[in-house]
Parts: sequence; structure tokens; C-alpha cells
Amino acid sequence: MNWAVVGVGNIANVFMKAIQHIPDVKVLAAYGRNREKLDAFCDKWNIKERYTDYEQLYKQSSVSVIYLATPHIVHFEHTMSALEHGKHVLCEKPMAMSFEETEALVYAARKNKVFLMEAMWTRFFPINKWLMEFIRSEEFGKPVNVNADFSFEYPYDKDYRFFRRDLGGGCMRSAGIYPLAYACMVFGCLPDEIKAIAQMKNEVDLRTAALFRFPKDCTAEIYTGFQGESQCMANIAFEKGTVVIPEFIHPDTAIIKPCGGEEKRISLLYEEPGLQFEIEHAEDCIRMGKKESPIMPLNESIGIARAIDLVYEQVRG
Amino acid sequence: MNWAVVGVGNIANVFMKAIQHIPDVKVLAAYGRNREKLDAFCDKWNIKERYTDYEQLYKQSSVSVIYLATPHIVHFEHTMSALEHGKHVLCEKPMAMSFEETEALVYAARKNKVFLMEAMWTRFFPINKWLMEFIRSEEFGKPVNVNADFSFEYPYDKDYRFFRRDLGGGCMRSAGIYPLAYACMVFGCLPDEIKAIAQMKNEVDLRTAALFRFPKDCTAEIYTGFQGESQCMANIAFEKGTVVIPEFIHPDTAIIKPCGGEEKRISLLYEEPGLQFEIEHAEDCIRMGKKESPIMPLNESIGIARAIDLVYEQVRG
Repeated sequence: MNWAVVGVGNIANVFMKAIQHIPDVKVLAAYGRNREKLDAFCDKWNIKERYTDYEQLYKQSSVSVIYLATPHIVHFEHTMSALEHGKHVLCEKPMAMSFEETEALVYAARKNKVFLMEAMWTRFFPINKWLMEFIRSEEFGKPVNVNADFSFEYPYDKDYRFFRRDLGGGCMRSAGIYPLAYACMVFGCLPDEIKAIAQMKNEVDLRTAALFRFPKDCTAEIYTGFQGESQCMANIAFEKGTVVIPEFIHPDTAIIKPCGGEEKRISLLYEEPGLQFEIEHAEDCIRMGKKESPIMPLNESIGIARAIDLVYEQVRG
Repeated sequence: MNWAVVGVGNIANVFMKAIQHIPDVKVLAAYGRNREKLDAFCDKWNIKERYTDYEQLYKQSSVSVIYLATPHIVHFEHTMSALEHGKHVLCEKPMAMSFEETEALVYAARKNKVFLMEAMWTRFFPINKWLMEFIRSEEFGKPVNVNADFSFEYPYDKDYRFFRRDLGGGCMRSAGIYPLAYACMVFGCLPDEIKAIAQMKNEVDLRTAALFRFPKDCTAEIYTGFQGESQCMANIAFEKGTVVIPEFIHPDTAIIKPCGGEEKRISLLYEEPGLQFEIEHAEDCIRMGKKESPIMPLNESIGIARAIDLVYEQVRG
């Protein structure tokens, strides 16, 4: 299928690198607000059609799928417009800035009968597919608790979008979405109770710790931040053992240990950058005429957006 | 010095094993409610004086230090009486069943000018001493988040003390005190905000997840339970790196990693059972005329008891 890339920053470059791994997929067009950066990106990746107006791209280009890679404050308008022009969309996380916006996008995708998926790349790594099989096998009984962290160092800069509320700043929505979505994946459901504590600066959270209750009395504790690099580890407690996934957002290993038994390592390596798995999955879904992914379903994106809104309601007071 | 052991269950046996490592320390007396079990214990460990009435022990025996190893529902009465008889006390965790009881014990210890310490053995392992030095060095900047879990499998039995509120049941006070006290140790202070979620049965928590805010915007997330064995791992995020302590309640290893750098393992092995370090420390304090430990101070025991009370207030509704 033919794709377009909307946004020409870091993640768009990672996407272009990943898509080289996939046969029969072409990127025909790109959108960038800044002409110079757009040209540099298109020259680098040999992309012909270049747009500094995304609506023109949606109208004129014959591409059928959009990879949405602009800053998340504009995901809503860029995705909504694409859906209304009948384009399928793979949109970077978070798909929008609130529960309401996310719901409106899902509504628009369904109305326009196009495919929409939040680009939760963690779900598509081979080791996470293995993990989901392992959970279904109930070898260790059911999972009861997930403990996961994702914090990285980003020097404070009051003008940078991470630290500006008006530009969608804050670590919970930017980074905390990963451990939260991971817990939702492990339990196969959404949280029904949320408690959070954050360190705020100018109405933006620099560090957030949050607790989630899931149905059947499962729980998750997550930690996220822009200050200090954390282990980025998912520690899953089952009824009869534990599974640890080091570097869970970009993983190749699971460390499993039954109660009272010996630790065992399982490794499933892959070629970098790793984004190719979610792209392949989106391609497959669209080819088969699916309007959403069974692995990253739209109701889950809505539920995760709702959970993040509730965290912010609590920590902003 | 001469010690007595009050209580003759599992942990009393571990204590006796540990005390064999320490020169110049003798256990002269023991108390047990059940004559048969008391005799079996004393025969095994060659203890002469045997009491089925703890007040008799406190009155008649010439021992100067009591190791308090009875079930925690009776810690308060057994410790209070010992303090009032002028005995120094090393009391198993939790030292009492509430903030108020803990405060009363501390008051009694100070009034009677005797040594009192909660037996938080985790603090005295060589690797944890190393960790405290490492934190003071600020090599990785300051610690900002602690993520720790301690859950073990104990089959549900409505008559067993773990599962009876009237016998001091519940995982937060029995097991959750370890990760909570560990976070207090790392930050060198007590939490000032608490949020918790628990799975309750007959007013007793079977699994608890809790979030703590510490001064200077530090946070901790803990998980504890009687259902399913967890990793028992402390994952500490610093400003400039991470430290993981596997099996943090009984540890010999630290895995340290600076931001962007390589992982390194530090091991400090010891002879089992490991309880000897806290016993040596209590001995040293008492010999030097100290009335409390600088490593496990009484105000910290009070603060931890208060934090646990607040968790229960929240989860019991």
C-alpha cells in the first residue's frame, strides 16, 4: 500500500527506517510545516510528493494510509482531517489530548469506514506477543499486579513543548502512557480506579506516580517522568510466579520465575528500529478490510485517554 | 550481654541461629505460652530459664535485653511490660498495631531510659550499608523514586492470623512495612501523602498497592500481598541513574547503571541467616549507652506506623 508521512521530525525518520524492512509498502508523500525541513526529509528518503498544507496532501495525493507523526497537540486536527478525507491513519501516541478528542476521532473513523490505530509499538514486539501467549496459557495462573516505570532525562526548558501545558506538555501523557498501556495489555482490560501523585511545575507534571485498580482486583503501579532515567522495567506478579520484561517499551527479553523455582530467560531478538512490527500489523489489518486492530483496539485508546485525564484531574487539583 | 527471647516460633529460631555468629552474647531465658513448645525450643538451643509467664521472666531473670518474637497483635503488651521492667527491647516488625500504640512504646522507652528498636533487619545488610553510602556520595544525584514489592503466597485460611483482623491480619502491616520502610531509608524521611488501593476480604487486605509522596517531591510505589510471590525487588530512580536491589529484604547485590552508561553489579555476600547484623547493631547501641538506633530511629517507627494506619483508613473506607 501507499503511505504518506505527516510530520518530519525524529519519529518520522525512525518510521522511514522501519518501513524499509517491509516489502510492497511505499511512502509517496510527506507533509511538513517548514519547507526546508520537509525537503531535507524527502530528499533523504526519496519521497516525491511534498506538502506544506496537510489538507492538500489529503485531497491531492493518492496515498491510502497516513502515518501521523506531528507533535501530539496537533494530532487531533491532523488525524480528524485525514479520516474525513477517507484516509486510514496510524497515529503516534497519544492519539489526542483528551478522552473527548479521542472519542471524536474514533467516531470519525467509524463514520468514514477507515482504519485507525494508536501507534502503541510496544505491543508488537515478538517478546510481547510471546508474553500474551504466556498469559493466556495460565502457566503461572493469572497476572495480579504490574509495576512499570518509564522516565527519561530531559533538561528543563520552559519553552519546550514537554514543559508547556499549551503545547500538550507533561510526562503522564507523553511517557506514562507506555506503562499504563502495558498494564492494560497484561490484564486485557481498563482500570476502574485511579490514584496519582505528581511533581508539578507551571501546571505541567515533571514526575508522576500513579496507581490503578483493574477489574478482578488487579493493580498496577507506574512511575514516569522527565527527570532521571529509570530502569524502564515491567515487573509482573502472577498468582504462581513472576515475569520481568527489561526495557519493556523496546524489549527482547523476558525473565520468568515460577514460585519457589528457578529463573529462566527468554530472548526474541529483532532488527532495529522495531517500529516495523506495528507498521506490518496496520498494513495487514487494512488489507484484510479491518477498521481497527484487535491488538490495539480503539476502545482501549479511549479508555487510556480517559485514565490519563483522571490522573491530570487529580494532580492538577 | 545477656538476652531473653519472648516467643518461640519461626523467627525466634532464626534469631537463635543468627546469634551463634556473635561472640559474647548469650541467650539465658525464653518465654512461650505453650509449655511443650517452650521446652522443645529451649532444649534445642540449650536455654536454661524457661517462663510461661512473660512478667515472671521480666521480674526474675537477670537478662538485660529482650528479643520480642511473639505474633504482632501482642507486641504492644509484651514490649510495654518489658520496658516498664527496665529491659532493653529489640522488637519484631511491626512494633505495634497502630500509631498510638507505637508512640506509647517510644514514650515508655524514653521514660524508663532503655533501648528500643524495631527489628528492621533489611537496613543492616552489608549491601544496604553500601547503598546508604552510595546515596550520600550523590554519584547519581539524589534518589527521586522507589518502586518496591514484597508479596508471598499464603493459602487463604480464615482462621489464620494473617487473615483475621482481630489477630492483626492484613498484608500492608505484615509485609508492606518492608517496602515502605525501605523507601523511608532511601529518602531519609517519612511520607507526607499516601494513596492506596487494596483487595479486602473480611476487613483484611490480601493485596495492597500504595503510593507515597516524600518531601522534595520524591515518590514511592509499593506492592504487597499474601497472594502470588512477587520479585521482591527495589528499583530506585536517581537524578542521574538507577540502582536495583534484587530481593531487597534479604539482599547481597546491587545493580547500578548511570544514565546512558553501562550496568555494573556489586555483591556483598554474608553468612545466613542475616539477622546477625541487626543483633550486633542493637548490642553495640546498648553497650554505648544509646537509647535508640541512628539507623532505625524511633521517630521513624512512629512515622511508618502512622503511614500504615493511613493506608488502612483509605482501604477500609
